[in-house]
Amino acid sequence: MFDKEYDVIVVGGGHAGAEATAAAANMGSKTLLITMNLQTIGQMSCNPAMGGIAKGQIVREIDALGGYSGIVTDKSAIQFKMLNKSKGPAMWSPRAQNDRMRFAEEWRLALENTPNADFYQEMVSGLLVEGDKVVGVRTSLGIDVRAKAVVLTNGTFLNGLIHIGEKQFGGGRAGEKAATGITEQLVDFGFESGRMKTGTPPRVDGRSLDYSKMILQPGDNNPEKFSYLETPKLKEQRDCHMTHTSQLVHDLLREGFDRSPMFNGRIKSIGPRYCPSIEDKINRFADKSSHQIFVEPEGWHTVEVYVNGFSTSLPEDVQYKALKSVVGFENVKFFRPGYAIEYDYFPPTQLKHTLETKLVNNLYFAGQINGTTGYEEAASQGLMAGINAHLKINEKEPFMLKRDEAYIGVLIDDLITKGTEEPYRMFTSRAEYRTLLRQDNADLRLTPKGYELGLAKEERLRRMEEKEKNSDKFVAFFKNTSFTPEEINPILEEVSSSPVKQSDKMFKVFSRPNVTMDHMLRLDAVSNFVAEHNLDTEVLEQAEVQVKYSGYIAKEKNNADKLLRLENIKIPEDFDYRKLKSLSYEAREKLEAIRPVTISQASRISGVSPSDISVLLVFLGR
Amino acid sequence: MFDKEYDVIVVGGGHAGAEATAAAANMGSKTLLITMNLQTIGQMSCNPAMGGIAKGQIVREIDALGGYSGIVTDKSAIQFKMLNKSKGPAMWSPRAQNDRMRFAEEWRLALENTPNADFYQEMVSGLLVEGDKVVGVRTSLGIDVRAKAVVLTNGTFLNGLIHIGEKQFGGGRAGEKAATGITEQLVDFGFESGRMKTGTPPRVDGRSLDYSKMILQPGDNNPEKFSYLETPKLKEQRDCHMTHTSQLVHDLLREGFDRSPMFNGRIKSIGPRYCPSIEDKINRFADKSSHQIFVEPEGWHTVEVYVNGFSTSLPEDVQYKALKSVVGFENVKFFRPGYAIEYDYFPPTQLKHTLETKLVNNLYFAGQINGTTGYEEAASQGLMAGINAHLKINEKEPFMLKRDEAYIGVLIDDLITKGTEEPYRMFTSRAEYRTLLRQDNADLRLTPKGYELGLAKEERLRRMEEKEKNSDKFVAFFKNTSFTPEEINPILEEVSSSPVKQSDKMFKVFSRPNVTMDHMLRLDAVSNFVAEHNLDTEVLEQAEVQVKYSGYIAKEKNNADKLLRLENIKIPEDFDYRKLKSLSYEAREKLEAIRPVTISQASRISGVSPSDISVLLVFLGR
Repeated sequence: MFDKEYDVIVVGGGHAGAEATAAAANMGSKTLLITMNLQTIGQMSCNPAMGGIAKGQIVREIDALGGYSGIVTDKSAIQFKMLNKSKGPAMWSPRAQNDRMRFAEEWRLALENTPNADFYQEMVSGLLVEGDKVVGVRTSLGIDVRAKAVVLTNGTFLNGLIHIGEKQFGGGRAGEKAATGITEQLVDFGFESGRMKTGTPPRVDGRSLDYSKMILQPGDNNPEKFSYLETPKLKEQRDCHMTHTSQLVHDLLREGFDRSPMFNGRIKSIGPRYCPSIEDKINRFADKSSHQIFVEPEGWHTVEVYVNGFSTSLPEDVQYKALKSVVGFENVKFFRPGYAIEYDYFPPTQLKHTLETKLVNNLYFAGQINGTTGYEEAASQGLMAGINAHLKINEKEPFMLKRDEAYIGVLIDDLITKGTEEPYRMFTSRAEYRTLLRQDNADLRLTPKGYELGLAKEERLRRMEEKEKNSDKFVAFFKNTSFTPEEINPILEEVSSSPVKQSDKMFKVFSRPNVTMDHMLRLDAVSNFVAEHNLDTEVLEQAEVQVKYSGYIAKEKNNADKLLRLENIKIPEDFDYRKLKSLSYEAREKLEAIRPVTISQASRISGVSPSDISVLLVFLGR
Repeated sequence: MFDKEYDVIVVGGGHAGAEATAAAANMGSKTLLITMNLQTIGQMSCNPAMGGIAKGQIVREIDALGGYSGIVTDKSAIQFKMLNKSKGPAMWSPRAQNDRMRFAEEWRLALENTPNADFYQEMVSGLLVEGDKVVGVRTSLGIDVRAKAVVLTNGTFLNGLIHIGEKQFGGGRAGEKAATGITEQLVDFGFESGRMKTGTPPRVDGRSLDYSKMILQPGDNNPEKFSYLETPKLKEQRDCHMTHTSQLVHDLLREGFDRSPMFNGRIKSIGPRYCPSIEDKINRFADKSSHQIFVEPEGWHTVEVYVNGFSTSLPEDVQYKALKSVVGFENVKFFRPGYAIEYDYFPPTQLKHTLETKLVNNLYFAGQINGTTGYEEAASQGLMAGINAHLKINEKEPFMLKRDEAYIGVLIDDLITKGTEEPYRMFTSRAEYRTLLRQDNADLRLTPKGYELGLAKEERLRRMEEKEKNSDKFVAFFKNTSFTPEEINPILEEVSSSPVKQSDKMFKVFSRPNVTMDHMLRLDAVSNFVAEHNLDTEVLEQAEVQVKYSGYIAKEKNNADKLLRLENIKIPEDFDYRKLKSLSYEAREKLEAIRPVTISQASRISGVSPSDISVLLVFLGR
């Protein structure tokens, strides 16, 4: 069936697999995407939305590097919101609601337009391994396809088991088959595997809901978008709605607890702590009498609706009875019940920073197989695995992002350094340098790297350079241009800031809290500058952030630079921690198992104390 | 989960299930469509095309009655052709290539816009039956949903078994689960079940084909469409291509025959004779050294291509090797191999003319479960089952179409009267009155009936009446208006028809072979009449057919009327054929089993001779 050897085979066509395929192929690798169903490439398995807090930043990073998630999201968006706009720019997080069908279609077409990407529909049942190196895959029909590298992105499909109340059945998603064979083989190779759990809420008929009883959740007035390229901005948007559970709803749910696979011991795996099922929420927060429910349309035209916040594996009759008691849902009709799914994952401490496995060379893992949850987390790992698979087989230096460079860097460093025992989700709090890792500057941070990799195209770099040049110019303008008290004092009064007595540089007053770009634009000199240089909103936003948060940014940069020095202290690959008796027992064990590449990485391993780090530094001659 | 009793439950969301749901819901029945996967409603399982010879007429009939297949086809078409345009209008057959994804999406949105249609995603595992009447269904989760009538449209899913070479695996389509439980229960009820087989060709990567070596198959220059309503006509079209197999290809395929499930006895069921697999073709027509292959794009933008004419269940390596030897396919890349699928069906002689089962009241079967093949055959049965389920539970007269009224009438009469031992496909040759059953007059034949049923809307009737009025007027014009020899003789000379000496009615000369509407339009009187009455192309076509084929049409109408008299002779439901010793033994047995409703139906049962009919007529007092 396959004459030639591929460079890279990607197994699975979800967010991780799609990005991995695009990345490897765009960098020049002959890439084959194998999926159990070509109709479900880019399927959103859970909520019809991309981005959100910290996650939106990841999508921007993927886009800045030359990945496709941002473009696909923009093309299929039905609503856009910049979350946390009232907080500092480190917290601004883009989020889009998507048309589920359109999203999958756009992904598929994007991949089809990637010249080096081939496609094949079948289940992969095993890997071809020679020595300590993967050399291809075997399909369920028994076809061997050879490749120089393989990226596994199996999502929830590996021995997937769906739970609804007391019922269980095999499946990778509702209505789709599970995948078998791979886990068993990897365990034979010496991999440690575990089980994780995730879940999804009921999907219901929007025609059966009473939106007049709910709280309207419209999109932004001037919707932005994800991609730094010229994707369309939304001209129309679809509304979401919000409603709440109540004590009655909780009581009705509780009636099903004895039949819940979560509580009767049938589900043993750990679910996502920060995206818990409704039964989890009412169990863990027994004192709360209400939880939010977001009612999200599944597309531009469909009546199907996603009940965000009501993920559950309770028996379907309990789901139904309880949901009917939610305000606005009195006459709800189910399209399908919620369910939980258990699946195999491989603790990610078994990976290198490149997402290559330590045990089998040229084998990469990305997405839920690494114990993460979330489309964005999966997509970014897929991107990085695809990039590194390509680099490795071309004998090039690996591509890694540091914790101060990208959320993607934080994500992967967390995974491989600390591992995870529950589905890992990104938060801004996981990043030490979140003021650096903003959604507005992902292009400035990463596009030059993406371009150097050959992944981000010329056009991307050009746009980023233009933006950088213009915002630098604009910042310089604020630093060099003075205001008069007459023109600025009315503004300061308006925002309850003390008036100035004499003229000074604009930068100084612009730095004050509550003084915004909109205020500054009222000064003739500023608006003239904008008009003269034809500055767009992205540049205005960038300049505003750089002016107003220059202090924070400088401080974080300084801290990061300090750590960078540690980062640069490499630990030899064959370093024998057992000889270092002055290390704590726990540190020795963890270091031996995880084998950090640098002192910095070692310092982030839980159980490795500052004094252990000092011991290491001394031993390494620092 | 379901508070209320539904009027009608439809099991399955393919062509049959979708039409059944639309029909029942539009007539006013509270209808629930249950499908294993809501994402695959209206999925084209096999080729991305609707219509074709006789099949195109069926789609026009469905549309004329108020079904949705024509509208969905028009909205998702990428190419349109009127086949057989060089033959008589009885043979004109519309056919469209479709965007597979768009087709499914349009179906789903059409159903969602049907107010009485609800949706639920799950597998139906059994029927609820009380006494001799179905009262609902049970799902795999154990949910009972009650309804007054149930329509089963399970397609290839009932115990579906997929074959590729020596490999077999359960599934309703590639990548989708089979459905279990229903067959077993029906057999318990006393139903006879059987196995049928169908197959599908490989899907390949269009980027890997060399179209320059193939024959271009573009759409019509002025593409028509299916629906009589105002759906859009195609402004752009995508091309298809044609190529051929060769002796080499056949030899390569033959090498796999010992591993073919068709020939090693693993597949026992009978496949569609008129849509055979490529191995069937080269086996049955061993002297033919070449077969046509149509290369059909799967949509507007996708690179996926359907290899029509190369359906096969040979081992995938044999498929690949052989297809590579087809001209233009030298570098072919597979998206997925072809496969055969075996599934359960129920011989349709177990049904009444309404598609209700004889054994279980209010239970209807439609589509492949009745042993048919083809989207159009399935859709039309779904429509009729949906209509009749609604009528039955509202205690109204059933709706049946006669053999001289519609291909749908021929189809259903054939099925329930003769049964079928191989997948039944419609042909023009199956219709005794094919000059009556044209694609151009399906609205005139059926829209009044659809309107009376409450299915076709006012707008549809209005358009049809307008067309009828105008074409009658135009035909009358030809009958009443005279030409002069001076104006008509140049035309007659052009088409090598003998010149006329004197003036006469236009009708007379228009009836001559080779004289077309285009010729007639050259006469000032004709073109003036068209302009004055603002006649559209549909009216021109209709008038032309009625003038030119008036002789044939009148003759067939006469024959049909004669038979109608037989049709009107009803046979009592409890008629005891065993008492009629003067019937042949075979006739007695068949009549007893099939229990025809009329003498006409009895006359079409194979094994019932004209003398048996005479015996019946005498006995019934005629």
